[in-house]
Amino acid sequence: MFKKILIANRGEIALRVIRTCKEMGIKTVAVYSTADAESLHVRFADEAVCIGPAPSSESYLKIANIMAAAEITNADAIHPGYGFLSENARFSKICEEHGVKFIGASPDMISKMGDKATAKATMKAAGVPCVPGSDGILESFEDCERVAQETGFPVMLKATAGGGGKGMRAVWKKEELRKAWDSARQEASASFGNDGMYMEKLIEEPRHIEIQVVGDSNGKACHLSERDCSVQRRHQKLTEETPSPFMTDELREKMGAAAVRAAEFIKYEGAGTVEFLVDKHRNFYFMEMNTRIQVEHPITEQVVDYDLIREQILVAAGVAISGKNYYPQLHSIECRINAEDPYNNFRPSPGKITNLHAPGGHGVRIDTHVYSGYSIVPNYDSMIAKLITTAQTREEAINKMKRALDEFVIEGIKTTIPFHRQLMDDPAYISGNYTTAFMDTFVMNPPVEED
Amino acid sequence: MFKKILIANRGEIALRVIRTCKEMGIKTVAVYSTADAESLHVRFADEAVCIGPAPSSESYLKIANIMAAAEITNADAIHPGYGFLSENARFSKICEEHGVKFIGASPDMISKMGDKATAKATMKAAGVPCVPGSDGILESFEDCERVAQETGFPVMLKATAGGGGKGMRAVWKKEELRKAWDSARQEASASFGNDGMYMEKLIEEPRHIEIQVVGDSNGKACHLSERDCSVQRRHQKLTEETPSPFMTDELREKMGAAAVRAAEFIKYEGAGTVEFLVDKHRNFYFMEMNTRIQVEHPITEQVVDYDLIREQILVAAGVAISGKNYYPQLHSIECRINAEDPYNNFRPSPGKITNLHAPGGHGVRIDTHVYSGYSIVPNYDSMIAKLITTAQTREEAINKMKRALDEFVIEGIKTTIPFHRQLMDDPAYISGNYTTAFMDTFVMNPPVEED
Repeated sequence: MFKKILIANRGEIALRVIRTCKEMGIKTVAVYSTADAESLHVRFADEAVCIGPAPSSESYLKIANIMAAAEITNADAIHPGYGFLSENARFSKICEEHGVKFIGASPDMISKMGDKATAKATMKAAGVPCVPGSDGILESFEDCERVAQETGFPVMLKATAGGGGKGMRAVWKKEELRKAWDSARQEASASFGNDGMYMEKLIEEPRHIEIQVVGDSNGKACHLSERDCSVQRRHQKLTEETPSPFMTDELREKMGAAAVRAAEFIKYEGAGTVEFLVDKHRNFYFMEMNTRIQVEHPITEQVVDYDLIREQILVAAGVAISGKNYYPQLHSIECRINAEDPYNNFRPSPGKITNLHAPGGHGVRIDTHVYSGYSIVPNYDSMIAKLITTAQTREEAINKMKRALDEFVIEGIKTTIPFHRQLMDDPAYISGNYTTAFMDTFVMNPPVEED
Repeated sequence: MFKKILIANRGEIALRVIRTCKEMGIKTVAVYSTADAESLHVRFADEAVCIGPAPSSESYLKIANIMAAAEITNADAIHPGYGFLSENARFSKICEEHGVKFIGASPDMISKMGDKATAKATMKAAGVPCVPGSDGILESFEDCERVAQETGFPVMLKATAGGGGKGMRAVWKKEELRKAWDSARQEASASFGNDGMYMEKLIEEPRHIEIQVVGDSNGKACHLSERDCSVQRRHQKLTEETPSPFMTDELREKMGAAAVRAAEFIKYEGAGTVEFLVDKHRNFYFMEMNTRIQVEHPITEQVVDYDLIREQILVAAGVAISGKNYYPQLHSIECRINAEDPYNNFRPSPGKITNLHAPGGHGVRIDTHVYSGYSIVPNYDSMIAKLITTAQTREEAINKMKRALDEFVIEGIKTTIPFHRQLMDDPAYISGNYTTAFMDTFVMNPPVEED
């Protein structure tokens, strides 16, 4: 087993990793930017090394500084957390070359899954369903017509250079195709100077449902069921739950089997997540694979009684998994508490926390690196806490979340607590019948006056 | 179901009850003394009524004031928590007479279990093993000899008026009986002016193990397995765990069956705890029954996935239990964090909490009513928080407790955190081989210097 693990990250995930290391009797090294000197991960690690100033490019992304810290402290492994260098093939490779175990995917695996086209081709080869459509750029309108016919309507025409919805058209019938083709190309040309188009099947009322997998060095993988992450704003997850209210036992078996097949096909080592889009007919399509721990991993831990960070460490140390799959025994919800103003278009709200009181009691878990007196700097991600409730049923988990949010006091800055509180009362959310478009129509109620 | 519950208590248990009420959609009324105006239970309840000044006799024990608060607020039930009026037959009766449901035992039940002699006689009749010995006062030395013979050595001679170990003798052999009898009576006479003696079997290397039960209005009861509370200081529990490291499946079946038999025999309604002494041969003897929620109830909730407060409310509302028993699926430990100085004979340490940071993460639960800036008044119990860790194994739960204690920051007052931290490293505690005498020989290490 490793003697000392360096955590190449900050915030709650650094603390999360330190906690499990302590419980396993493994020493820890924190690295930190000058802006994070007062952070709890610095305080709770056995050793801490400053690796540079605040912009991440000068510290948390600076591979040379991190490797130097590992060398100075004699760390035999590095846990990258999520974000920063966690899916950086070069970093994984440098660790390998320096004889420091990277607790994450191999350079090759990261490269494979990091490139969308390669990932999709690999998944197709593994027999995992992918969104049907053109193989790259459509050569002509005739080509476009042929692919649309093969794919089946509705389809999406997308500009290859696209972004922000420009050069993008949903087409529901054959008769609309010509007009869409012309106008999308025109728009793409005007916007990007490139009228190359490709086509994908339009996923109707899509849900973002992901499967947690763990693979070991023997090429064996298992799944730990799903997380529903459909409540997103600009592709940022806001809240997640497991089981998915949309899930059926049959679909879970199918998606779980596909995710395990994907992991075993690429001989995936460690914890990973296979993200799928699921349409209203419960067809599912591979989106991407994240070769690291996810922010929302705690809800899985809560319902299957499993420490995912511990498992990452064990697998990295060469311990074999049993191969059995895990199924949710309870219901768990995570709300990401961000230092953002939900009444002001979720604008970041850095500053000093003048008062903090966290909720507690039965079925409440909190993962946070902030405390009363902590100053949130504007340099990093705005997430300051994860509030997780767990209960026997979804309804109970929602009720628990409501009371926990009501108890949560954070003063001095704006947070997304009021957003989550409103969400927990939202009929569409409560019904469980929500899609990735949920936030498009969500409007905050006027703020409640404090008495 | 009840519409509004008044909580006739303070501190963490008041908050605990409010939390479950909120989750069940039941309105809550807090009552508070002037000293508790800033307490969280006042803040989080839907309504709050001041019932008098700080000494409990003027507020939390003042039945008339509490009943008036219930009337004013139109509460249809009262939850008494633990301590205060929770085992007061008169209070239970007054509630009954006023048509306010008392969420606890009936007046009759409280009286029966509150009087030691009646409780023991009832348990004997129910076939629950009690500590063998004399039926009341020994009439003569001949009587003493006879009972000793019947009971079997070792025995304890105890002064009927006794206390503080005076007039108490352990006798291991027949030959020692005469001398013990004479000297104990002499001491009792001198100390209490009463030389009446009774005899009980001496329980060798006793452990305090209790069984949680729940009974409903149909006379049906179930058990939720045991809690080991042997780590005590002057009969005050310091830390508890479940399962007991001393437990066997066979003993659990026997003790569980005895506790259910006891509850069903007296037609017990609500949550109750049957406390036993267990000797080194795994014989168990009834000690007492607590007809209320226990401080240490969370560890049971953690390992059997059950909300005991919710169950109390449901049963009080007439809902029937399924009757199945619950067995621990995990291991859970509770440390009672008291505002006491463990380096100074556990002397109370009231005052203002200048800084508080609670641990969090996987498997950590905290029940507390205090916060940064909260002032602990000297009028009440010194317990300020319950820290509970839960894991797959005892070893993991201990390791989790260590790291959680290390993270727990409470500044401005002294707390028992260093005691618990040392306990978690204590070889006897770690071995699980401890008895109620554990604290007699426990010595705090010198304080660790902060850097």
